[in-house]
Amino acid sequence: MTSQHLVPVILLGVGGVGRALIQQILARRDYHVSQYGVRLEIVAVADRNGACVAPQGLSESELRTIVEHKAGGGYLADLSFGYYQHNVRDIVDLEAHANTIVVDVTATDNTFDALLLARERRAGIVLANKLPLTRPLEKSSPLWQYPRLRYETTVGSAVPVITTAQRLAASGERIERVQGSFSGTLGYIMTAIEEGMAFSKAVLRAKELGYTEPDPREDLSGRDVARKALILARTLGWKVEMADIRVQSLFPEEWATWPLEDFLAELPALDADFFSWRNVSQARHEALRYVAKLTPDQITVGLEFVPQTSPLGRLQGTDNLVEFYTEYYDPQPLALQGRGAGVEATASGVLSDIIQLALASSSA
Amino acid sequence: MTSQHLVPVILLGVGGVGRALIQQILARRDYHVSQYGVRLEIVAVADRNGACVAPQGLSESELRTIVEHKAGGGYLADLSFGYYQHNVRDIVDLEAHANTIVVDVTATDNTFDALLLARERRAGIVLANKLPLTRPLEKSSPLWQYPRLRYETTVGSAVPVITTAQRLAASGERIERVQGSFSGTLGYIMTAIEEGMAFSKAVLRAKELGYTEPDPREDLSGRDVARKALILARTLGWKVEMADIRVQSLFPEEWATWPLEDFLAELPALDADFFSWRNVSQARHEALRYVAKLTPDQITVGLEFVPQTSPLGRLQGTDNLVEFYTEYYDPQPLALQGRGAGVEATASGVLSDIIQLALASSSA
Repeated sequence: MTSQHLVPVILLGVGGVGRALIQQILARRDYHVSQYGVRLEIVAVADRNGACVAPQGLSESELRTIVEHKAGGGYLADLSFGYYQHNVRDIVDLEAHANTIVVDVTATDNTFDALLLARERRAGIVLANKLPLTRPLEKSSPLWQYPRLRYETTVGSAVPVITTAQRLAASGERIERVQGSFSGTLGYIMTAIEEGMAFSKAVLRAKELGYTEPDPREDLSGRDVARKALILARTLGWKVEMADIRVQSLFPEEWATWPLEDFLAELPALDADFFSWRNVSQARHEALRYVAKLTPDQITVGLEFVPQTSPLGRLQGTDNLVEFYTEYYDPQPLALQGRGAGVEATASGVLSDIIQLALASSSA
Repeated sequence: MTSQHLVPVILLGVGGVGRALIQQILARRDYHVSQYGVRLEIVAVADRNGACVAPQGLSESELRTIVEHKAGGGYLADLSFGYYQHNVRDIVDLEAHANTIVVDVTATDNTFDALLLARERRAGIVLANKLPLTRPLEKSSPLWQYPRLRYETTVGSAVPVITTAQRLAASGERIERVQGSFSGTLGYIMTAIEEGMAFSKAVLRAKELGYTEPDPREDLSGRDVARKALILARTLGWKVEMADIRVQSLFPEEWATWPLEDFLAELPALDADFFSWRNVSQARHEALRYVAKLTPDQITVGLEFVPQTSPLGRLQGTDNLVEFYTEYYDPQPLALQGRGAGVEATASGVLSDIIQLALASSSA
């Protein structure tokens, strides 16, 4: 490929990952042109109220303005260029064709119709957003069956968990079990507890460091890990629904509906349990981990005691670990490890997906 | 994709990996049809003297006959069906078109012209053979630049090292260093030495177990690891040649030309060195490993002392480990681990490459 292949990008979402992605696309544009002959042009950036749109591509200075403005908490509506007060489906309707790549880095359900429209237009789709893929299969199968979809960063950030699962599924070798620590947030909290910190304090510290969702119950309920397990299972070709996953929450069910301050204030009531589990586990040379475990028969997500000397037991901080036990990887698994959080690493994984989609459609 | 997509496969090489691949293709044909709508038909199987060819696909019983016959050490020339006494380029010339996938699981240089012809025909190419990719760039760049090439199993067997490197290169993030143990064979020998076995005995044991090449100097010279390092570096986009790699051989240079028996008989002369290195390393709580280390400035392959508690130090037996240190994976690397040997795992990785190539060309 010697000629330059122009690829329009529609970006849905301008949170931390979206802003990092814009910056990386700008910083690496020359590299992508010289190395792959691919020139990415961001033609639309959408937040929850509307979008900045420029069919020929937003300029570098416009994009930098967007990044700074959103980092300051502003809305795109307040900007003075190319703003349309449309929903995301309208933006896709306006701008997407077969050469376009629609990138969803939101954490909402509201992009679903826009993604289905992108599929109809034969546009490429890249998701860091887990929600479209965790709907009931009846709803989400048009996405699952779409060959021009990439979603590597929905599980394990940029660690290539999905790519690996896709390769194993493609070969058709028997998958016996997949297990691991899929949450950098819960990994951080478990490590802190192991080092003697109270559970409540570990949660607050994780929140301060920006590791948790704004409402940490999203993490502590296990829901986010369950979503990742569901996406991984479906990638392996298993026909499973969210309701099939046994999820252990780290707090009592009735706390789920409380105001956030009340929830945070009550957290120390759970400290004693975690202290005693920690003491039991250390006496047994084990470590307490929040583990996802997938077999063709059952998927569970919850607390486990694992040997301190096992890969899971040795895991520290926000690192993720995923172990695949298969027909040929048993007793020793195929294992992937690396940081499971951080907006820049995730943005970099999204960018890999974008470039590889662009290359796949230009080469075949 | 609901219709059935017929994909003709030309298989070059019927050693252990080739035979395992034929068996896997047969055993999983129904799965590949139902899951992906892809039906693989092996239209030619070549050994060093010629090929069995059937444009409509060799039958299951013919393929089983080939597998058994080759496992017994026979030549395809002795079979009574579809045999042509042609070189591999002629076979590709006869059978390859844009829908075909040419699979090279030989360990020879003789397939190169056939692969270039496959490229001209726009056929897919899957390599487990490292040699075509380790020629000088001037020669091999037509392959390197070919988008319908897959070669995941050339480094780390089916552990997705190449896929990961391709993703990192696509994103464009800065690669600081890649290091690891790329040889299941040398990993086994290092572990055995650590456990107190003499070097010479460990080599002979590895040879008995089928872990080494027929001539173990291929492994012990570091040449095979250097080839993997070269392929990995080029995958990262680095313009390097074999001569740029500093390779430490585990035996004196002048032994390279000896008859194999003389070489094996002389091996115990090296035992004392390895014993003393092992003792030094244990006293320092270190482990002796054969390590490949790649930076943008320098690539080295050789013996290293590493901390016993590091991932490389904990590595046991034939497992491979590859650690990527990048802009976003530092100080903790993105790490991949899993068995680096075994004909069935490698065949399964080759099969992933074949199916993914077939899907890429049918979907875009």
